[in-house]
Amino acid sequence: MFQQEDIQLAVATLKQQFGERLSTSISVRQQHAHTTTLIVNQPPDAVVFAKDVEEVSDILKTCYQTKCPVIAFGTGSSLEGHVNAPFGGISIDMSKFDKVLKVNHEDLDAVVQPGVTREGLNIYLRDTGLFFPLDPGANASVGGMAATRASGTNAVRYGTMKDNVLGMQVVLADGRIIRTGGRSRKSAAGYDLTRLFVGSEGTLGIITELNLRLHSIPEKIAGGTCSFPSIRASCNAVIQTIQCGIPLARIEMLDPLQVRACNAYSKLELPETPLLLVEFHGTEESVQDDLKRFTEICADYSSSPFQWSTNPEERSKLWKARHNALWASYALIPGATGVATDVCVPISKLAECVEDTIADIEAHGLTAPIIGHVGDGNFHVLPLAMPDDVEMQKKINAFSTRLTKRSLALGGTCTGEHGIGQGKSAYLRDEMGDAVDLMASIKMTFDPKNILNPGKLFV
Amino acid sequence: MFQQEDIQLAVATLKQQFGERLSTSISVRQQHAHTTTLIVNQPPDAVVFAKDVEEVSDILKTCYQTKCPVIAFGTGSSLEGHVNAPFGGISIDMSKFDKVLKVNHEDLDAVVQPGVTREGLNIYLRDTGLFFPLDPGANASVGGMAATRASGTNAVRYGTMKDNVLGMQVVLADGRIIRTGGRSRKSAAGYDLTRLFVGSEGTLGIITELNLRLHSIPEKIAGGTCSFPSIRASCNAVIQTIQCGIPLARIEMLDPLQVRACNAYSKLELPETPLLLVEFHGTEESVQDDLKRFTEICADYSSSPFQWSTNPEERSKLWKARHNALWASYALIPGATGVATDVCVPISKLAECVEDTIADIEAHGLTAPIIGHVGDGNFHVLPLAMPDDVEMQKKINAFSTRLTKRSLALGGTCTGEHGIGQGKSAYLRDEMGDAVDLMASIKMTFDPKNILNPGKLFV
Repeated sequence: MFQQEDIQLAVATLKQQFGERLSTSISVRQQHAHTTTLIVNQPPDAVVFAKDVEEVSDILKTCYQTKCPVIAFGTGSSLEGHVNAPFGGISIDMSKFDKVLKVNHEDLDAVVQPGVTREGLNIYLRDTGLFFPLDPGANASVGGMAATRASGTNAVRYGTMKDNVLGMQVVLADGRIIRTGGRSRKSAAGYDLTRLFVGSEGTLGIITELNLRLHSIPEKIAGGTCSFPSIRASCNAVIQTIQCGIPLARIEMLDPLQVRACNAYSKLELPETPLLLVEFHGTEESVQDDLKRFTEICADYSSSPFQWSTNPEERSKLWKARHNALWASYALIPGATGVATDVCVPISKLAECVEDTIADIEAHGLTAPIIGHVGDGNFHVLPLAMPDDVEMQKKINAFSTRLTKRSLALGGTCTGEHGIGQGKSAYLRDEMGDAVDLMASIKMTFDPKNILNPGKLFV
Repeated sequence: MFQQEDIQLAVATLKQQFGERLSTSISVRQQHAHTTTLIVNQPPDAVVFAKDVEEVSDILKTCYQTKCPVIAFGTGSSLEGHVNAPFGGISIDMSKFDKVLKVNHEDLDAVVQPGVTREGLNIYLRDTGLFFPLDPGANASVGGMAATRASGTNAVRYGTMKDNVLGMQVVLADGRIIRTGGRSRKSAAGYDLTRLFVGSEGTLGIITELNLRLHSIPEKIAGGTCSFPSIRASCNAVIQTIQCGIPLARIEMLDPLQVRACNAYSKLELPETPLLLVEFHGTEESVQDDLKRFTEICADYSSSPFQWSTNPEERSKLWKARHNALWASYALIPGATGVATDVCVPISKLAECVEDTIADIEAHGLTAPIIGHVGDGNFHVLPLAMPDDVEMQKKINAFSTRLTKRSLALGGTCTGEHGIGQGKSAYLRDEMGDAVDLMASIKMTFDPKNILNPGKLFV
């Protein structure tokens, strides 16, 4: 599919242009491949540190001419092998491409380069009264977040990257530079190229600039927790909250094993039953109203009183279980690594999907805590395995396939926010059927030589 | 480009299948072409009334084989000639394809056929506590609204069709039937085909089923009006309201001429200065809070007190000017027809854009009231002309071009919600540059024979 001599020609050509800013050292190459889960590390042949759109365009022109794979790299926090180079090629490191170019206060938007991280952007915004709310956990780059259609804990209120990118500048496979849209809040001008590139996982073009929506920092934030006797009770509370139109900013569910892990890790004494953590954003008055109404709903379903606070330190204490959940999970089996799953179902099916998944975990002897962004019906199971435990890894793969089938059977998706990457192409076909052929035809049109992140999304 | 004998072969073939449900009468054909503005009526060669997806697939297979244009028709309320047949062909009337197939109360979504109108859907939902909020004015079909990426007065709160379609079933040019997505609230599974078809104006496929988001009917609705001394003052009030995070459900601006027209038509006595009409949706408490805060903002900028009510009849009276605005505009020149323009700019540029537009209207002696969905920066100027006044129509075309250039220069779009259709292809190129080539390449991939709504979007 790709020839080593073509790739080496591209590397040599780019070396002349980039000099020190092109590295072929094995450690740099390995750092720019997948590092965050059990997916194997597949380094590129070289890493180029690009600084502007013209350089990205030059790289693509060279790689298009020589037929060399190109992979964009933000911070490497993706979970599905997106930054791996299964066919070798060039990784473009965007970390130097990290300027906030403009903040438009009155329009609540910003123009940023793709290497800006979400935390970096929020630090930049700290005196403006505005923030960029999306929070996928890791301090990802906004370019990478757009490429994977990321979201996280507060998507229930602020949407996903699909909702928070107004427009982008993108470099196409052959080096052409285009804009997908502007800064207006809405537009009916032609095909929605912005949404087509958001979530395209680096396979259609390289994002070189983004117009992002910002939001006003809420006057008041309240957070709280409540334990429930069962998964179903907690899900019913979520459904009723949404049906009542109570504006949730975050609503997370921890299953009993996750609560147990958090108790052990963070020295908490939470009842080891399903736990909901919620956050409300608004004005003094509206947040009080939300708290009152949510308290009433919890009283109908919960096994513990709803504890809440608007004091930042108190809130943080109540949410401690959530903040440390990942490390608490890993501590269940010291030395183990997790496989992050990512199904999402219609919320009416959430209780059924989570209950059946817990039964499956128990039946197969897995250690697999669950955390859900339950306002969206999205949840992550983190089955743990020692890096050398091949048997367990096989069991986990089989579990992951069953989990996906369960989600699809309930009208859900194989990935709520992590993307397809290397491992989920078969699931994509199960979910989307012949629509995958349509996606492949778009890919072929945009990138006829298949140089953009080959081996991802499609197999 | 298309041969009359190919089209006649398609018509004859389909006549055999559809019998009485295929009409070639000139009155039916003219009803299925453009009727709502000064754009010329270009009837198709035949109109087929389809009832299910298999029939749509059959029609497309026949038309693909014979190379015959196909245009989907909902209610004919589009404003940019989308339903015209400049090359003849077959119009598929979707009005019989109008069932609400399922309402999922817990998930706040519905599965509907494309011929369902937005009012029809809301009548169906009336006992459920749910509603479909999008309101483009006309009682459009939801299929047509998706095809044009419609929105309307409450997009500032509920988004546009891009935000309210979860997934669709679509028939492709060659008759293949695909699904673009499912019912889960979010997904990162592959390219966002849903958003690609939303706003594609019937040029990529025919929508045959939609999963729509629904919303809980708010516990409380408050509406009100306030007059301002200038366009700039009214825009500043809007900007400050949004920056304060006050959740507007609707915010409409009428310019002085529009207010004058409404006073004359509806026997009102509003000050003939810019008028804002607002609506808040929420709980009893949150709406009171919103009203209080908005009253304070108005006090800083307005020339009249903010008058509001939560009583439906009172609200309706306050909003009377808005409800009758279109008819009031037409009454400015009895017998005249309007040309609906549709620019949208970043909200920080709205005052400048509207002020310059009013100056332009005055300088060129046009009669052209303005209504804006100002929370989104979107506004419509309605220059009036008698159907036989060719000189005035020329002046209006020149005005429309200047208006679009003004919007683009300010970072806006040539269409916020009406689409490109027949008249705006040149503007699309001005706005999107080479990205139009990318759109054209998608069109070519999806519809290599260009049978789907030819002559729209691209020239």
